[in-house]
Amino acid sequence: MRRVRFRDRGGSVRRGEWTDDGIEFGGEVYDPEAVDVLPPVEPSKIVCVAANYVEHIKEAGRSIPEDLPPRPGFFLKGPNAVAGHGDTVKLPTPAATEEELAGREKGDIELGQGRMDYEGEFGVVIGEQCRNVPEDDYMDVVAGYTCLNDVSNRDDQDVERNWVRGKAFDNSAPIGPVLATPDEVPEQPRVRLWLNGEKRQDSDDDELVFPVGRAISDVSTFLTLEPGDIVAMGTTVGVGPLSDGDHVEIEVEGVGRLEHDVEA
Amino acid sequence: MRRVRFRDRGGSVRRGEWTDDGIEFGGEVYDPEAVDVLPPVEPSKIVCVAANYVEHIKEAGRSIPEDLPPRPGFFLKGPNAVAGHGDTVKLPTPAATEEELAGREKGDIELGQGRMDYEGEFGVVIGEQCRNVPEDDYMDVVAGYTCLNDVSNRDDQDVERNWVRGKAFDNSAPIGPVLATPDEVPEQPRVRLWLNGEKRQDSDDDELVFPVGRAISDVSTFLTLEPGDIVAMGTTVGVGPLSDGDHVEIEVEGVGRLEHDVEA
Repeated sequence: MRRVRFRDRGGSVRRGEWTDDGIEFGGEVYDPEAVDVLPPVEPSKIVCVAANYVEHIKEAGRSIPEDLPPRPGFFLKGPNAVAGHGDTVKLPTPAATEEELAGREKGDIELGQGRMDYEGEFGVVIGEQCRNVPEDDYMDVVAGYTCLNDVSNRDDQDVERNWVRGKAFDNSAPIGPVLATPDEVPEQPRVRLWLNGEKRQDSDDDELVFPVGRAISDVSTFLTLEPGDIVAMGTTVGVGPLSDGDHVEIEVEGVGRLEHDVEA
Repeated sequence: MRRVRFRDRGGSVRRGEWTDDGIEFGGEVYDPEAVDVLPPVEPSKIVCVAANYVEHIKEAGRSIPEDLPPRPGFFLKGPNAVAGHGDTVKLPTPAATEEELAGREKGDIELGQGRMDYEGEFGVVIGEQCRNVPEDDYMDVVAGYTCLNDVSNRDDQDVERNWVRGKAFDNSAPIGPVLATPDEVPEQPRVRLWLNGEKRQDSDDDELVFPVGRAISDVSTFLTLEPGDIVAMGTTVGVGPLSDGDHVEIEVEGVGRLEHDVEA
């Protein structure tokens, strides 16, 4: 089932099902284009796994296998980061200066240009409060899956130790359009991203470094996860810059397609 | 005024005032020792300023003025990090191995020993939703001040890019016991910390790198701050290890004294 939250024409928040016919709620079918689709959950935090696809690690200028992380690396986005399907993401202005960035290299990613990147990902939505989840039992705490764009402010990301300006700014995590229950989604779903209709990312030829169970197990050794929290599984190769007026589409196998616009 | 949240004997959550006589609520006075004092606020996120006192920067092995940060550096703790006055903080087990930490140096701080440190700080509590706060107008969005312990897992902090295992684990942010309104607290309040009754930190001889207005202004350029969110202003020199059974007291000038226990 694909669960969707939306605001109907009267302003009420509804929870329905996204089917081939449209959004079904209370015996009626709504056109998804005619309602305000909301983020499918309201996370207390988003735990993102950094550098979790082999080809993306290479494009960021690192070597395989030398630079494979010894364990999942995490970073956080707060509730302020959440945006929804159909929203317009307003990009921030980096604080890092051209002078600070002079000579810095990040593989195929060009810094010092106010570069804001898309990163298409699948997000795992937590269904119940949990701590110390055994790797093999992770499905016990998973409510489902969603699409996520880990919008990234590269200049600041590169000069700061913790990626707050770089990754945790307002609307840096568009999610949705639905929460797809686990029966709809394979263990490592294919993720594709289109920028203005052109395909830019496809995880099909890439490989996850750490699977979902490992990520949930590792992070829950330190942090309690709450219902609605999201573990974002990282992005594949093909990250690239966003500009004013761009349209982003992210499709996660079994989930559907998240779309949002960009304002610079 | 010193506002306190507590759970009374009947289990109800009350909001009272902490006076010299005790906790006043509904015409009655409660003994603070006889009620369950709760965290004074429920932040959606805690934004911490890293390396914000000159003498602490030195003890972490960096040079002044070469290593003074060009702007406030931030890291995040989620709602899971919050603990309250009188609580017992359970320390995590680091994931970093002795092998990874061999040869790593961090000034006066010894790594590779499962070292969990106290860091006494003052936290600024946000009173209203805000974004792009001008530095000079920061008091418009401040509800008050509280004490905070930025409990730090040094081994993991040193090997991870983003301090999630290192700084964002459960109960890594004891806060309280009260929210003191701005009229009670000077602009840069003195912070002192006692470990098992022995004074270990005193900010009186140290200097903030970035004042509160600068921190709030900078971070709010990127993130919306919500009522109850906390901006933690960093720690002074004298950080040190915590062990099972330790008792920590943190006093912020004008606020009062936060106490908590430690379990390893």
